[in-house]
Amino acid sequence: MSHLLWQKPGVAVDAQIQNFLAGDDVVLDREFFLHDIAASKAHAAGLRQIDIMSADELASLAYELDALAEDFRAGRFILDQHYEDGHSAIEARLTERLGDAGRKIHTGRSRNDQILVATRLWLKQKLARLAAVVREIAGVALERARAEALLPIPGYTHIQRAVVSSAGMWWAGWAEAFIDDAVRTIDTYRLVDANPLGTAAGYGVNLPLPRSHVTDALNFARMQINPIYAQLSRGKFEMAALEALGGATLDLRRIAWDLSLFTSAEFGFVDLPAQYTTGSSIMPNKRNPDVIELMRATHASVSGARSEIEQLLSLPSGYHRDLQNGKGALVRGFHHGLGALELLPALLANLEWRPDKLRAAIDSGMYATDVAVEAAASGIPFRDAYRAAAASADQAGEGRSPEASLVARVSPGAAADLQLDELQQRWERLTPLAGGTV
Amino acid sequence: MSHLLWQKPGVAVDAQIQNFLAGDDVVLDREFFLHDIAASKAHAAGLRQIDIMSADELASLAYELDALAEDFRAGRFILDQHYEDGHSAIEARLTERLGDAGRKIHTGRSRNDQILVATRLWLKQKLARLAAVVREIAGVALERARAEALLPIPGYTHIQRAVVSSAGMWWAGWAEAFIDDAVRTIDTYRLVDANPLGTAAGYGVNLPLPRSHVTDALNFARMQINPIYAQLSRGKFEMAALEALGGATLDLRRIAWDLSLFTSAEFGFVDLPAQYTTGSSIMPNKRNPDVIELMRATHASVSGARSEIEQLLSLPSGYHRDLQNGKGALVRGFHHGLGALELLPALLANLEWRPDKLRAAIDSGMYATDVAVEAAASGIPFRDAYRAAAASADQAGEGRSPEASLVARVSPGAAADLQLDELQQRWERLTPLAGGTV
Amino acid sequence: MSHLLWQKPGVAVDAQIQNFLAGDDVVLDREFFLHDIAASKAHAAGLRQIDIMSADELASLAYELDALAEDFRAGRFILDQHYEDGHSAIEARLTERLGDAGRKIHTGRSRNDQILVATRLWLKQKLARLAAVVREIAGVALERARAEALLPIPGYTHIQRAVVSSAGMWWAGWAEAFIDDAVRTIDTYRLVDANPLGTAAGYGVNLPLPRSHVTDALNFARMQINPIYAQLSRGKFEMAALEALGGATLDLRRIAWDLSLFTSAEFGFVDLPAQYTTGSSIMPNKRNPDVIELMRATHASVSGARSEIEQLLSLPSGYHRDLQNGKGALVRGFHHGLGALELLPALLANLEWRPDKLRAAIDSGMYATDVAVEAAASGIPFRDAYRAAAASADQAGEGRSPEASLVARVSPGAAADLQLDELQQRWERLTPLAGGTV
Amino acid sequence: MSHLLWQKPGVAVDAQIQNFLAGDDVVLDREFFLHDIAASKAHAAGLRQIDIMSADELASLAYELDALAEDFRAGRFILDQHYEDGHSAIEARLTERLGDAGRKIHTGRSRNDQILVATRLWLKQKLARLAAVVREIAGVALERARAEALLPIPGYTHIQRAVVSSAGMWWAGWAEAFIDDAVRTIDTYRLVDANPLGTAAGYGVNLPLPRSHVTDALNFARMQINPIYAQLSRGKFEMAALEALGGATLDLRRIAWDLSLFTSAEFGFVDLPAQYTTGSSIMPNKRNPDVIELMRATHASVSGARSEIEQLLSLPSGYHRDLQNGKGALVRGFHHGLGALELLPALLANLEWRPDKLRAAIDSGMYATDVAVEAAASGIPFRDAYRAAAASADQAGEGRSPEASLVARVSPGAAADLQLDELQQRWERLTPLAGGTV
Repeated sequence: MSHLLWQKPGVAVDAQIQNFLAGDDVVLDREFFLHDIAASKAHAAGLRQIDIMSADELASLAYELDALAEDFRAGRFILDQHYEDGHSAIEARLTERLGDAGRKIHTGRSRNDQILVATRLWLKQKLARLAAVVREIAGVALERARAEALLPIPGYTHIQRAVVSSAGMWWAGWAEAFIDDAVRTIDTYRLVDANPLGTAAGYGVNLPLPRSHVTDALNFARMQINPIYAQLSRGKFEMAALEALGGATLDLRRIAWDLSLFTSAEFGFVDLPAQYTTGSSIMPNKRNPDVIELMRATHASVSGARSEIEQLLSLPSGYHRDLQNGKGALVRGFHHGLGALELLPALLANLEWRPDKLRAAIDSGMYATDVAVEAAASGIPFRDAYRAAAASADQAGEGRSPEASLVARVSPGAAADLQLDELQQRWERLTPLAGGTV
Repeated sequence: MSHLLWQKPGVAVDAQIQNFLAGDDVVLDREFFLHDIAASKAHAAGLRQIDIMSADELASLAYELDALAEDFRAGRFILDQHYEDGHSAIEARLTERLGDAGRKIHTGRSRNDQILVATRLWLKQKLARLAAVVREIAGVALERARAEALLPIPGYTHIQRAVVSSAGMWWAGWAEAFIDDAVRTIDTYRLVDANPLGTAAGYGVNLPLPRSHVTDALNFARMQINPIYAQLSRGKFEMAALEALGGATLDLRRIAWDLSLFTSAEFGFVDLPAQYTTGSSIMPNKRNPDVIELMRATHASVSGARSEIEQLLSLPSGYHRDLQNGKGALVRGFHHGLGALELLPALLANLEWRPDKLRAAIDSGMYATDVAVEAAASGIPFRDAYRAAAASADQAGEGRSPEASLVARVSPGAAADLQLDELQQRWERLTPLAGGTV
Repeated sequence: MSHLLWQKPGVAVDAQIQNFLAGDDVVLDREFFLHDIAASKAHAAGLRQIDIMSADELASLAYELDALAEDFRAGRFILDQHYEDGHSAIEARLTERLGDAGRKIHTGRSRNDQILVATRLWLKQKLARLAAVVREIAGVALERARAEALLPIPGYTHIQRAVVSSAGMWWAGWAEAFIDDAVRTIDTYRLVDANPLGTAAGYGVNLPLPRSHVTDALNFARMQINPIYAQLSRGKFEMAALEALGGATLDLRRIAWDLSLFTSAEFGFVDLPAQYTTGSSIMPNKRNPDVIELMRATHASVSGARSEIEQLLSLPSGYHRDLQNGKGALVRGFHHGLGALELLPALLANLEWRPDKLRAAIDSGMYATDVAVEAAASGIPFRDAYRAAAASADQAGEGRSPEASLVARVSPGAAADLQLDELQQRWERLTPLAGGTV
Repeated sequence: MSHLLWQKPGVAVDAQIQNFLAGDDVVLDREFFLHDIAASKAHAAGLRQIDIMSADELASLAYELDALAEDFRAGRFILDQHYEDGHSAIEARLTERLGDAGRKIHTGRSRNDQILVATRLWLKQKLARLAAVVREIAGVALERARAEALLPIPGYTHIQRAVVSSAGMWWAGWAEAFIDDAVRTIDTYRLVDANPLGTAAGYGVNLPLPRSHVTDALNFARMQINPIYAQLSRGKFEMAALEALGGATLDLRRIAWDLSLFTSAEFGFVDLPAQYTTGSSIMPNKRNPDVIELMRATHASVSGARSEIEQLLSLPSGYHRDLQNGKGALVRGFHHGLGALELLPALLANLEWRPDKLRAAIDSGMYATDVAVEAAASGIPFRDAYRAAAASADQAGEGRSPEASLVARVSPGAAADLQLDELQQRWERLTPLAGGTV
């Protein structure tokens, strides 16, 4: 490592210890590097405002920061173990190119607030993407609910046949689930949308940093005011973001479970396009729904990432190096979570039901609840009607059809009254979020 | 267990299995019993609206439900292992007292939506309480920030002395943290504030249940529309609530860590009133800050509860008995979490700083950052100023005082510009939540 | 709370704080009370050996400790909020009955080592029970494997039909799984089987306590030597015990998943005796396998308990009150875990396969691997044989039967060579553990 | 991806889906590649034994497998996204070089048992390394305990001064802790030390595979007999390994907490060599103990990894693609855990106490327990002696010294009787484990 900002002359350095200290940190910083550069530009402009640097210095810094971003994007600048971290790399590059102007960039800031602001910018982008993907999933589900409103499918509780259900109810259920996930994501985005830059190492500085200006320049909705809180919120806002993501991946886990059963030979309700399946190295007959299983497995990564960060946060206030270890978990969680969710819209759009199999799985007993409720509607106390229906549940289907059962399912939200317009309105109210453009 | 709603004649019952099935379930239902009764009243009124029952039947049901609530509150009705669960107990009591009207109460509903609505009503109450407590904590912190704005305390990073800090900055940091916790809690309350009653076993019913009316009667902000989603959201909204609570208990863990250090002999910064301490059974000299340690330990309960529910949610859609096992975790999490948070306002209000100890812990090196930034403000590139200050860090305090350092800390949010008015405004914008009155 | 061993005159006590400090602690101590009494007897005998008390005092203490145990078992002594904890209750009772002899019992010990020794005694009992239950499960599985060695069942990967399998292979798989769980449990018992009594508050005492003698008297295999380690091991050995339990409940989760599918109408492989099922409050047709689902849910409790304790263990060495909060998690985890596992032997013994359904689920493609491997055995390179078999997988079953496929499955461990004798020997080598007799 | 063993003609492939399916899998397989090759050699030898291949074919396969291992080690063979996974890469290479012999290598095996055997071989290596490192840590601690047996240090409970302690007690405590960790690791190694190769896709094959021979050739202690159990144990044995590792990293977390406090200015008990510290980018005065903090943070990674795998294991029996997702967590957990533990021996060996600071932190009240116990030894009931000592705790130190207190601490395990010989014997009984030589 050639650039240690803080290195003092004559202090021994041990290679094994330096490697341990470095860990994956600088490699992980690649994720945040463009955000760090963007924040550095805003910081420089702030320093200009309070006359720490000249207009010329600012212009040259802005130019070099843009060039660095361009070089990084193009693969001409590699962020690697030559640097302690991304922050040091920026200062080193600016100093190398510009001399004193580069040596001024760190005035009034610390790597502590640099990583905080970069992480928040990054998270805003990821949460905006999450909200968009989740909204897209809900959109597909809404469309299919409309198209297949009264297609009969068996309804289960306890993985046991319960009552007649409909594809419309199933799709609309997922639509509402993912709409709520989008709401949670939007709320979380707002929580995260506060600017910590200008809080330095956690105690502010003796400079009148124009933090409001910088906050606006970086498109933050508000300033994170207190420097001690800026540090205290580290890990906590990452956890909130992973929780929002986890809401969606939990729903993904459950829809994947449905599809895992539905694509089994025993259920056989759904045909999956071949590109979603793989074969076996030994069993010539296999086509396995690996994509669905990996979707189901995704929440484990998100949950493990959140739990890893949570374990770190048993600390007094102030920055501690422990906190840096949460970076890998955060990146990993979003990488896996978004990666899986992004495949879902097309998969859902391409699912094909097998109506024969669905109908064959609706047996006579599944009308018994209809029978009992009808009797209750005609004046028999429900508990008596229930007992009567239970005594002859096997014959409950006589003279009945799935379609008729669905048409009569008039309680709001149920098959005959899916309230798709209301769901559509909730869907349309989901605000698109600005993800930033680094 | 004498009341099994679904029992069929001639089916063998095994005591050990029945005990296992019962578990703590009916005891836990005590928590939700009054909410279940309130929802039952609204459901009965709904049934009246669609002519399932007469006005007289409704009146008698309402009367008996009120009486049951009263008996329960007064300890005259004990919810215990005589019943399979709280839901069955309600129907059994109504049937015993009213005959047919009682046998009608379950028309168009299932225990599946009964527990969902009761849990959401319960959670609204708990989240309203959480928001209030967290807001109160932030309020105390804001007050003390105002009162002790420029009281010098040492600022740490890595539990190593870093720069001069102030009590004001420390208090305002916690204020902002708990304000954000309150925002998260309010968001979560809104997520939870949707009525699942009327979704029956997860597929609706063949009755035109007046769900909008019932939604209003129970003071829900909106209807949870889809019956399949009503079941899918089980566990997920409990997790969201525990996450909101966990945000606050994580901050509690960290403030408890500060206080645990500050009350040690080595730091000695804080005196804790004697009632917050306990003694040892063997060491005559001890006064231990047990309250602070139990506060620190609280997040583990909340986190364990959330994780327990999360583990359950690897299931296909539809109700599964597994989901019922999350009830204990939810109750436990809120019991521990709220119990600990409720003690914090008084503890914070009564903390006494020991200014002599605080001042003694501010050493000369802690002014080195001031020195470097001043030099940078005068035109020396910061990195050069830093290196110069590093070379003589031990003498950085010459001619300096903590007070002067704080007065010069003018970056927004820092000691000389705490922005308490802005924090106060954010605090005042925290909407009080309706907790319900069961 | 009337008995605070450490209370000093004139210190204010606050009821809310006292309640918070108390928590469920004293109620949880009921679990450990008899073990605490047993350890108190051994400690008293140790004090007699070093002449801290007279033979008469020892005799009277032993008598009263036995009486207290008897009263507690009979419900005549209630351990409740009148006491700070079980430890204080013992000293209070002895002092009340015996005066000075009672006031001597705490010589050279602390509540810190009291709870440690009581917890280890309790855990030895629970782990012995766990080992016995898990061994019993493996025993049932072995018996059924022998009885149904060549009963054909479909074998799945990815919940997709794969190859012909056998009930024998399925049962023997669970047998081997639970044998390994028993081994882990026995290893863990040995880890826990060390006596911490005599380490006092974590630093020993200025008395020549006869710790070896006490270790033998309490039937511990060895002494936990170091007092600081005695405290450091708190939480850690509970976690190890929960991990051993969790190994078994993870297997329980997976066998419950199999049975949950197998009892569905779509698979229909297994009939579950009626006492393992429950009905629905609204759907007259339902019989739900609740017992299986609660078994599947059990691991969540065990895992949540372990995770709760883990979160507490981010502390310096020495006792901290945080550690006490793990007690509830430990008791809960073992209560749920053992409760579920104990039902499994009878459930497995009573399962009935439906051979017609099993056979119907074996389709032609499931012989394709047999075909390919046979070709490979005859000299065709496997990858070529695989491709050929893939091309005509649908016809692979022509002229083949499940029975013939199983008889040819001769790789060691597979259907034709289950190696039940070897498994039986491993099963017989599982050492029974002494659980103690309190 | 050019090599899909199972690809059928005419099936559409989608790049985004293929990328999702691939994930990091092939990159992670680099960890297991040499073990996979070693197992492939043993498998080939087994196939020769049952005449699936000729002696010449075996010789050429062995040669090419060695060459592949050599090329991989030397960086001439890169395992990357050109291959679906490491297993496919091996077959592809052998087929490319040897034609038919390569096409034979997969006879009677599946990627399912290939990854199982490779993971177990890998884990044996990691657990052997873990046992060695943990033993080394205990060794350093034992040495220092001997050297500093009676060096006085303050003893804490609740981070409050409690009684006089000694460096010897502190070191011996860690020694005993890490000895127990080594025992757990050895137990876990034995659990893992079973050969799954030859169980194919989870149901065995119609070939008399010489599994005992292969088991011996790969140096496994026993055969994992049942093919269904081989699959069921996936994830579970990884969790057991991470639990063993986690025992050590939990102790690491706690010793790091001690050192974090001891290196603070307020405690000041310990000097850390400069190479274990880093500086700040903004604060010229800082030297921060980052190494200690990263050690403290390590357990979070191990715990997160274990929890990630645990979340996956809610599945029926049989292989599921979900299980593959645990690979990354396992590799990450061991990478972080071992990396941190490996630095501990040198750090502990180089720690320097500051005796003046230690002595200054021993205050008069810390002798009060000595006073009370002495009185109890002279015949005063302990509870009376305790009350008397409490009344004058501040004067307890009069005429006393830390050294005298330690010399009198004669309870077995305490400062005057550390029982280092017994610990040394336990340490010497720790069996070295064979890590394998791939």
